[in-house]
Amino acid sequence: MPEQLTEVVDPAGWTCPAPLRDQPVVVMGHGGGGALSAELIEQVFTPAYGNPVLAGLADSAVLELGGARLAFSTDSHVVRPLFFPGGSLGDLAVNGTVNDLAMSGARPAYLSAAFVLEEGVELTVVERIARAMGAAAGAAGVAIATGDTKVVESGHGDGVYVTTAGVGLVPDGVDIRPQRARPGDVVIVSGPIGLHGVAIMSVREGLEFGAEVASDTAPLADLVAAMLAVTPDVHVLRDPTRGGLAASLNEIARASGTGVRLRERAIPVPDAVANACGFLGLDPLYVANEGRLVAFVPPSAADEVLAAMRAHPRGTGATVIGECVADHPGMVVVATGLGGTRVVDLPLGEQLPRIC
Amino acid sequence: MPEQLTEVVDPAGWTCPAPLRDQPVVVMGHGGGGALSAELIEQVFTPAYGNPVLAGLADSAVLELGGARLAFSTDSHVVRPLFFPGGSLGDLAVNGTVNDLAMSGARPAYLSAAFVLEEGVELTVVERIARAMGAAAGAAGVAIATGDTKVVESGHGDGVYVTTAGVGLVPDGVDIRPQRARPGDVVIVSGPIGLHGVAIMSVREGLEFGAEVASDTAPLADLVAAMLAVTPDVHVLRDPTRGGLAASLNEIARASGTGVRLRERAIPVPDAVANACGFLGLDPLYVANEGRLVAFVPPSAADEVLAAMRAHPRGTGATVIGECVADHPGMVVVATGLGGTRVVDLPLGEQLPRIC
Repeated sequence: MPEQLTEVVDPAGWTCPAPLRDQPVVVMGHGGGGALSAELIEQVFTPAYGNPVLAGLADSAVLELGGARLAFSTDSHVVRPLFFPGGSLGDLAVNGTVNDLAMSGARPAYLSAAFVLEEGVELTVVERIARAMGAAAGAAGVAIATGDTKVVESGHGDGVYVTTAGVGLVPDGVDIRPQRARPGDVVIVSGPIGLHGVAIMSVREGLEFGAEVASDTAPLADLVAAMLAVTPDVHVLRDPTRGGLAASLNEIARASGTGVRLRERAIPVPDAVANACGFLGLDPLYVANEGRLVAFVPPSAADEVLAAMRAHPRGTGATVIGECVADHPGMVVVATGLGGTRVVDLPLGEQLPRIC
Repeated sequence: MPEQLTEVVDPAGWTCPAPLRDQPVVVMGHGGGGALSAELIEQVFTPAYGNPVLAGLADSAVLELGGARLAFSTDSHVVRPLFFPGGSLGDLAVNGTVNDLAMSGARPAYLSAAFVLEEGVELTVVERIARAMGAAAGAAGVAIATGDTKVVESGHGDGVYVTTAGVGLVPDGVDIRPQRARPGDVVIVSGPIGLHGVAIMSVREGLEFGAEVASDTAPLADLVAAMLAVTPDVHVLRDPTRGGLAASLNEIARASGTGVRLRERAIPVPDAVANACGFLGLDPLYVANEGRLVAFVPPSAADEVLAAMRAHPRGTGATVIGECVADHPGMVVVATGLGGTRVVDLPLGEQLPRIC
């Protein structure tokens, strides 16, 4: 990285080169799902593609095709290491796209899987990843329908990269997108946060934080279906992966022009995650999840949706963590246990590169 | 590559480690679209995914979803260099997936685009690729509807890798797949072959073969629509990319259990391609194309389909190169100008790694 780059302190507490406009090369933060990623989309991809579909900052696009309302989404997966407590790159590759589809209310149906393999990687590693994908697809009720494999020379990859795309059907009457958040909406998280990020940190950095922490990677489409069975009028769904809950809530606040107010004591942070974050100087709100969702639900339906979530195996830990407010539009704040409030800003990048 | 690997001579004339079963690591040929790729699919991916949709060896899967018949396909693009005469990785990323969809007769509609960027690559390079994709999408009549960006550390990528997936609508009455080839079918190629491969070789190896050769990268969906307007009963379509016409025809012969007989003198090989192949000791039948298709058409419709192709800007060079026969099922042979015949076998890998 050229030395003349301006370093700025990110609100999440780590340093990162200043945004896109000030520097000419790709930095790790451009893949972090925070402000640098958003700038790349806004300044490079959206103008280049020049179409109205690539809109909002939703996890998946909702399209009309042949009379059907389809959700369509893609994610590349470059997580390191390939295998970690609770899962593997293969699990993330399936669950990541399944969840992106589910976040528009869709019932995921088919996935594609494209591998970029590095020359010299053991075929048993490829096979383990593929088997994890098959098992995850079975668990999520989707079929891997098409694929591709490319190989690059040693030193131009990192074992296995997998890009999945997926299509699913959006039920009639469902219109879930970040722009629909409105003051009064109840903000619900489906369970404890930070487990995926801490699981990756623990194996990558060789750290242990008391008990072994396993990634929460899991498919969420069934949980979403259970919520929509209560009411189709869920306003927003999001799975807070890269950049954690902080990034997801900021994107929703900005897209909808509403404020979000969280109650710090209500946010479910497992002890192991709290310990790890304390040790590393991180904020759990910025740590990645791979099997959680955050929902914005109208107050009239909140109790029933919460009950439906808690009755589902993927939502037993569901809890209300805050609400949408008319104050401070576009901004996320958290009311601390001491009676104060602090701003939770969009991170520049991700605290831990290659988390997914 | 471990030294104890068995080296075998490939029918296309280059050496390559023996297939999957004899060696434990990924080699470049696993990404080459030939026998090694097929073994990876048959021995690793299909058993791992365990579903009936990932079938045949078609360029795209045809699925029912919400009452619509969808084609769904994906390709990762790792071509090197990123820019070459006639196009760029961005053009291939769009046209590659557009063409895979078109080869099932679909009208391509939406693409996804997932980038794996290497830390340190210039943002202007990313922007040039994205703009090429936007322009190619516009030319092909598709919208890039969703995307993702990941960044990997320097030394774990190669500037820009792009994986696209696409969805399109398959018209009623259309059933195009390799299994439908049958004896009597007329084999048509849409124009001169080998241009993409020779264009890449010329820039990568610093060779010149007389006049500059430009890649043929182009979208083929309009050409396919013009063919289907003549008759929906086109049996097979294929764009002969990696592994060239030889790989595509072998896959069709094997999938359908028919034989394919080509007339060598009828195959349109441009002088520059012939010169380059002569110089490098390659067979033009194995050289990659990115804007050509091969069609298997019932004899009753062949003249009309050929006329429709020649009337289309992407098919002015269309010509009959052979036919499907009951003899030598599963095998491709070419009748030489001297009255003999030779077998055209499935290559093990691709002559030139990272061609697309």
